[in-house]
Amino acid sequence: MESENRQRIYINEVVTRDGFQIEPTFVPTEEKIKLINRLSRSGVAMIEATSFTSPKAIPNLRDAEEVMRQIERVAGVRYTVLIPNVKGCERALGCGVDEINLVMSASQTHNQANLRMSCEQSLAQFAEIVRFAQSAPVSINASLSTSFGCPFDGAVAEQRVLALVRRFLEIGIQSVTLCDTTGMANPRQVRSLSKAVKAHWPDVKFTMHFHNTRGMGLANAVAALGAGMLHFDASLAGLGGCPFAPGATGNICTEDTVHMFEQMGYDTDVKLDLLLEIARDLPAIVGHDVPGQLIKAGKADKRYPVPEWLGKDQIALAGKPAAAPPNASR
Amino acid sequence: MESENRQRIYINEVVTRDGFQIEPTFVPTEEKIKLINRLSRSGVAMIEATSFTSPKAIPNLRDAEEVMRQIERVAGVRYTVLIPNVKGCERALGCGVDEINLVMSASQTHNQANLRMSCEQSLAQFAEIVRFAQSAPVSINASLSTSFGCPFDGAVAEQRVLALVRRFLEIGIQSVTLCDTTGMANPRQVRSLSKAVKAHWPDVKFTMHFHNTRGMGLANAVAALGAGMLHFDASLAGLGGCPFAPGATGNICTEDTVHMFEQMGYDTDVKLDLLLEIARDLPAIVGHDVPGQLIKAGKADKRYPVPEWLGKDQIALAGKPAAAPPNASR
Repeated sequence: MESENRQRIYINEVVTRDGFQIEPTFVPTEEKIKLINRLSRSGVAMIEATSFTSPKAIPNLRDAEEVMRQIERVAGVRYTVLIPNVKGCERALGCGVDEINLVMSASQTHNQANLRMSCEQSLAQFAEIVRFAQSAPVSINASLSTSFGCPFDGAVAEQRVLALVRRFLEIGIQSVTLCDTTGMANPRQVRSLSKAVKAHWPDVKFTMHFHNTRGMGLANAVAALGAGMLHFDASLAGLGGCPFAPGATGNICTEDTVHMFEQMGYDTDVKLDLLLEIARDLPAIVGHDVPGQLIKAGKADKRYPVPEWLGKDQIALAGKPAAAPPNASR
Repeated sequence: MESENRQRIYINEVVTRDGFQIEPTFVPTEEKIKLINRLSRSGVAMIEATSFTSPKAIPNLRDAEEVMRQIERVAGVRYTVLIPNVKGCERALGCGVDEINLVMSASQTHNQANLRMSCEQSLAQFAEIVRFAQSAPVSINASLSTSFGCPFDGAVAEQRVLALVRRFLEIGIQSVTLCDTTGMANPRQVRSLSKAVKAHWPDVKFTMHFHNTRGMGLANAVAALGAGMLHFDASLAGLGGCPFAPGATGNICTEDTVHMFEQMGYDTDVKLDLLLEIARDLPAIVGHDVPGQLIKAGKADKRYPVPEWLGKDQIALAGKPAAAPPNASR
């Protein structure tokens, strides 16, 4: 398909942040750098490279400065990092990031459990970070966790999400990521919230962050797309996940997501074969199997050789009984 | 939600046919019977119990008669079986099934590889089976494999699928299942084909049969639903799968599908907690892990206890630093 006729979709690759953060073992700094450098050449629009949190809080990402200083910046790719507070912001700006990503939860209990603050305290801290960062050449995004439900508090009202987004924008945050932190969202809900935020703020960039915890990840991505969303977080090979659902799959898988959107006729600008190569090397880096399907199944346009016992002649001479028994797969 | 206000979705459970057919080991007859009896009480609308194919072709289902004669028929549940030919039809009718399911592929090479016949020969055989069965008190459905693409021939034109559906109906087949045999379908394609068949034959019952081989299974189900499809094949715990994609997931998972539809506000009539119990027993029956996500993650409305270190007081006294470090998951 001609690229110019296709709607562009923007992928933010989060594997080295969302994925590596919860790995049972530390991924060596040089492996992180090598992986980000490869991903930078895969065509993804943005990479969330790391997190400038306390090394005690997230030891897996204690090498944030080294990673950000040593990766090659590829033109056209934006590099973003998660920051929890002004100190993290200062560290991040010192490394020359393109964007900082602030995070809080839509639900009180998750925000307390995750950040040890009330939502109001998080908002106050957001304002402080924005004041600190606003003169720097950096975009400011906020990720709103548990936007589709909280594992402690349950349902999160759409009105609450809208109110928090409004607060973000008032503070001076430029763009917002709506996160389904523990895979509770369903396509109907995603469509509804997506339409609501698009209706309220048609010119604000919203990114959708889905997990496949209950199998609905790609269905939710399609629902968001149907409501006009064009920016998606995704994690290579489906790494990441949720501490509340051991064994369940993680973030939506980048290569599976890209493949689906491309099959649907959208343009992600991602070199999918290259991305698949990178994804296939991930199990060796993390030391375990990964949830991604495409690295096992291959792309939908993969052609299999006609079985040996079924030569072209036999197809032409249809009806001639063949040696192998039918298996009635469908 | 009140059942009467919700749109009904109909689930056809295919695990003992599509799932067990390709298991590396034979599932004992008594296990099959026990499983079908449990499924009969789970609220699924239909069960594709087995296949009356040659025991040499599919040894795993060589006990079709025993299974069909020994299961308890639960009122309100329809029991269907796959049949490949008149002989299979005769065997099936002898066991008193509610429906027979004929199968052929939309693509020539897959039909040859799977059934050792050309598509025309399959259609001729369909006509023969219909003549044989039409005086019996049985519904006649046809499953059209590779309706969304063929692993040998590639793309399958929508016009070809429509032409074959037309032939089915002319022959006297009453309902049609459109099968994405090897997980090649994408949501856009599913929406298009679903709308096309609904437009042509608004009064014919169509069932959608998806595989999750490339992660798009539930996204495709939602796309079909959006185009008005209300009948879905699904396999308990996601058993089944595709011989062309070793390691990839199989048929869409019944409990994940039911959960998604229920979360979206639809009524499947399935007792999901009961279905989850049955699904959790499946790994012990087949002797390996299964792809279903919900049996690992629990339902979206599952509530987790607030962490011990984060008592209610602490939430009220928001801001008081807690003992455990923040982890910034989102």
